[in-house]
Amino acid sequence: MTEYPTALGASTPERITLLGEDLAEDVMGRVSFGELAFRLATQRRPTPGEVRVFEAVLAALADHGFTPTAIVTRLTYLSAPDSIQGALAAGLLGGGSRFLGVTEDCGRFLHEVLTGVQLPPGEAGWDELALKTVTAQREAGKFVPGLGHHVHKDGDPRTRRLFEIAREEDLFGPHLTLFEAIGRVHPRVLGKTLPLNGAGACGAALADLGLPLELLRGFALLARTAGLIGQLAEELRSPVANEIFLSVDGNTVSVPPDPDGGSDG
Amino acid sequence: MTEYPTALGASTPERITLLGEDLAEDVMGRVSFGELAFRLATQRRPTPGEVRVFEAVLAALADHGFTPTAIVTRLTYLSAPDSIQGALAAGLLGGGSRFLGVTEDCGRFLHEVLTGVQLPPGEAGWDELALKTVTAQREAGKFVPGLGHHVHKDGDPRTRRLFEIAREEDLFGPHLTLFEAIGRVHPRVLGKTLPLNGAGACGAALADLGLPLELLRGFALLARTAGLIGQLAEELRSPVANEIFLSVDGNTVSVPPDPDGGSDG
Amino acid sequence: MTEYPTALGASTPERITLLGEDLAEDVMGRVSFGELAFRLATQRRPTPGEVRVFEAVLAALADHGFTPTAIVTRLTYLSAPDSIQGALAAGLLGGGSRFLGVTEDCGRFLHEVLTGVQLPPGEAGWDELALKTVTAQREAGKFVPGLGHHVHKDGDPRTRRLFEIAREEDLFGPHLTLFEAIGRVHPRVLGKTLPLNGAGACGAALADLGLPLELLRGFALLARTAGLIGQLAEELRSPVANEIFLSVDGNTVSVPPDPDGGSDG
Amino acid sequence: MTEYPTALGASTPERITLLGEDLAEDVMGRVSFGELAFRLATQRRPTPGEVRVFEAVLAALADHGFTPTAIVTRLTYLSAPDSIQGALAAGLLGGGSRFLGVTEDCGRFLHEVLTGVQLPPGEAGWDELALKTVTAQREAGKFVPGLGHHVHKDGDPRTRRLFEIAREEDLFGPHLTLFEAIGRVHPRVLGKTLPLNGAGACGAALADLGLPLELLRGFALLARTAGLIGQLAEELRSPVANEIFLSVDGNTVSVPPDPDGGSDG
Repeated sequence: MTEYPTALGASTPERITLLGEDLAEDVMGRVSFGELAFRLATQRRPTPGEVRVFEAVLAALADHGFTPTAIVTRLTYLSAPDSIQGALAAGLLGGGSRFLGVTEDCGRFLHEVLTGVQLPPGEAGWDELALKTVTAQREAGKFVPGLGHHVHKDGDPRTRRLFEIAREEDLFGPHLTLFEAIGRVHPRVLGKTLPLNGAGACGAALADLGLPLELLRGFALLARTAGLIGQLAEELRSPVANEIFLSVDGNTVSVPPDPDGGSDG
Repeated sequence: MTEYPTALGASTPERITLLGEDLAEDVMGRVSFGELAFRLATQRRPTPGEVRVFEAVLAALADHGFTPTAIVTRLTYLSAPDSIQGALAAGLLGGGSRFLGVTEDCGRFLHEVLTGVQLPPGEAGWDELALKTVTAQREAGKFVPGLGHHVHKDGDPRTRRLFEIAREEDLFGPHLTLFEAIGRVHPRVLGKTLPLNGAGACGAALADLGLPLELLRGFALLARTAGLIGQLAEELRSPVANEIFLSVDGNTVSVPPDPDGGSDG
Repeated sequence: MTEYPTALGASTPERITLLGEDLAEDVMGRVSFGELAFRLATQRRPTPGEVRVFEAVLAALADHGFTPTAIVTRLTYLSAPDSIQGALAAGLLGGGSRFLGVTEDCGRFLHEVLTGVQLPPGEAGWDELALKTVTAQREAGKFVPGLGHHVHKDGDPRTRRLFEIAREEDLFGPHLTLFEAIGRVHPRVLGKTLPLNGAGACGAALADLGLPLELLRGFALLARTAGLIGQLAEELRSPVANEIFLSVDGNTVSVPPDPDGGSDG
Repeated sequence: MTEYPTALGASTPERITLLGEDLAEDVMGRVSFGELAFRLATQRRPTPGEVRVFEAVLAALADHGFTPTAIVTRLTYLSAPDSIQGALAAGLLGGGSRFLGVTEDCGRFLHEVLTGVQLPPGEAGWDELALKTVTAQREAGKFVPGLGHHVHKDGDPRTRRLFEIAREEDLFGPHLTLFEAIGRVHPRVLGKTLPLNGAGACGAALADLGLPLELLRGFALLARTAGLIGQLAEELRSPVANEIFLSVDGNTVSVPPDPDGGSDG
């Protein structure tokens, strides 16, 4: 008979356990939600400093206003108000490569660069590694994940603050160090100065916390779930989804079909 | 020109605000994730006691082991490992009436009973109201939401603990009070003693916190998002989804089509 | 050992069967996609007339331009272009009570009215039943599903055409007959003339085909899947999703948080 | 003012158009659902032969029994029976790289090989191109998409049949020709004979029809939507989802948390 081992939730008639602890006695009322999410993903107890960095990342990613994912959640709620789960799920489905993927891409990228490399002893060494990294990306015709922002062109306030918090908690590890060095040296290669964006800094910080790289996007989605609930709460107070729909519908122009427009087959 | 007002995320080149505060300076590193989720949904700052009760609810709902939603997330990840957002969204879509809906149903139910009713002065008065409530449901052939549990037949440990925490924080309001009274009096009407389940207690506690009733299911889904990330993290460490798939696939039996089985048209 | 019986897809190394037939020899190249969808839902072979009515319904529901579901699919694709399945799924999640639910609601409503009722012998009898039905809804303060349309105020061209096709195929059954009678008599009760909308007519036609009432919304979703692929194909040819996003984002106005706006707790 | 051009659905009070045609008069009752889906994706009218190949592909992909996507749809319906759209969307979210992606991967792969290449004049020329292709993949340590099947080891019946239908309709184009040649020559490179699988053949056939490569997975998802409705219809007749859930839940074994299992950070 197949068995499915798990350290997550389990229960007997008298007791519920989660990660080996008594849910009612040891978790409820004692463990913050941010710490719990960290524990669930790592199966270990984080330090208070780790929780602080982790929650700072979640705060940075929770809501960015009327993003596509926020619009999608509001429109889906307009269309199917009976299914809150559908409205949230629809919004999360926009959490792909373009709008929420930078966190994961940046964490993975930094990790790959660091794999098998002897960590440099000082700032000059990190600058050298960063220089090699940016140059290699440029020669391959690729962007450096986490570099550049369409609004915060002179610096993303989340990045500076996250660096500060990580330093305060003594959790400024190799991923953040390499990311910071990339911020210093890239103008020498690219010929212009780009900001280190907050989503990328979040990826570096999560990687330094030792969280599974495959799930970095998952944490962005967890943060965004809280943000999308905020969007729905505001939609309930002062609805705009129908106005958004009408503003699109009202500017539609019918054109003839274009049989030659589609195929590149 | 249509305008879309929002108090949520907004940004200028130098500054990002969230609910009127500076995201980097006032939120990151200072506000826990549970508190942030509360603020996003209510646009107000909760007290520390409110955060504690809210986070206790999230802990109670985060993960219940191999529920349908957990299995769905693992199977979807097996099938489409390139899309974490799809695996999480698929799991959340199971958050409907049967498995995650009790929290919302119970909160709404208690709220409806309390609407327009003068709050009773003491335990005897609450018992009377509860008795009337359970009797009315019974006469209408309906269940009382939050009553009964298929495993914790002699009492759900989460309920007892959530009552305790709410009392400690002086947040044991009318919804919890009515729910507790239902727990005391229902045997007189139903002729048997059922436990007050944890999901129902969570709905009562969230309603007492003044959270929007339409979104109570949303908070269960937020908690579950953390749980589903835990499920994916464990699936990455010790995969079982393929075994689950094979155990179903291997026990399939082909039967002839049954043209008479479907329509009731 | 649990067994899972199914008449759907099954395979041996040499052969694949679907609903008891050889998929390669008896289905591929011989059965149209509309007929196949009908068979999968009913486990029986429809007549050519049934397929024609069914496919007319699917055509009526496939695409209605820039609906919320279409906008959602385009925005999700903009945000996560790596996941076509996510963009389609997000669009389908808008298929709830407000925008795609009329088909199911109308089919179920007509069916409930007809359950246990002796079918009237002629038009006068149907009018009487319809009158009773509309009056009862009005007295209960409820709308009649399928009645009214915000654009086609003088008649929905799909309804007239679907009636015609069902008559041509001798499939104008009791659901369509009652629906048509409601169209004749409702002004006597409501004091104004409303059109029978196409979505409602589709529900009546699907119910007359004997399709499972629980899945009527599912057929609307199947039709819409084809429509959403059309939306994505057009988005690939001449993208508008980013313009839609910018037109929303650009009209955002920051307002202070409103702590009193949310709770009715 | 931004305008959103579209050739898809549009309506005036009197008339609904779809791709420039009158929906009621020219589409309903005249255009099959398969043809309509083709038109929506290409904005052109297919020939009857093109429709036949297209619908054969959809039939081949509609349902493969208790796949992860089918299990997911059934479990989600069990958990949230109030939301058919959620159950279908959840199932489609499994349509990613592993279980439904072969169709897209194979179509794209063949198309890339053919881009910029002079088409060979005869079978020997195609074999040479195929040999070069398989060798290059092997040297790059990559699989050839569409090659191999875990059940139909001696040949996938869908592939043979789809080849036959495409030949009958004179639509056996360069993608199918290259795919067939790969089937002939790969043993010389790989040292073993693998079947050309049906999902891959479908991708080749869709590419030969000139359908947008970015949407090949979309057609697999359209076919699967019909299949998932079939799964739900069968679940309504003879439910198994709860048994599946219990068989997993009942074989769960609690193990202690494993803090060292997760991170590779």
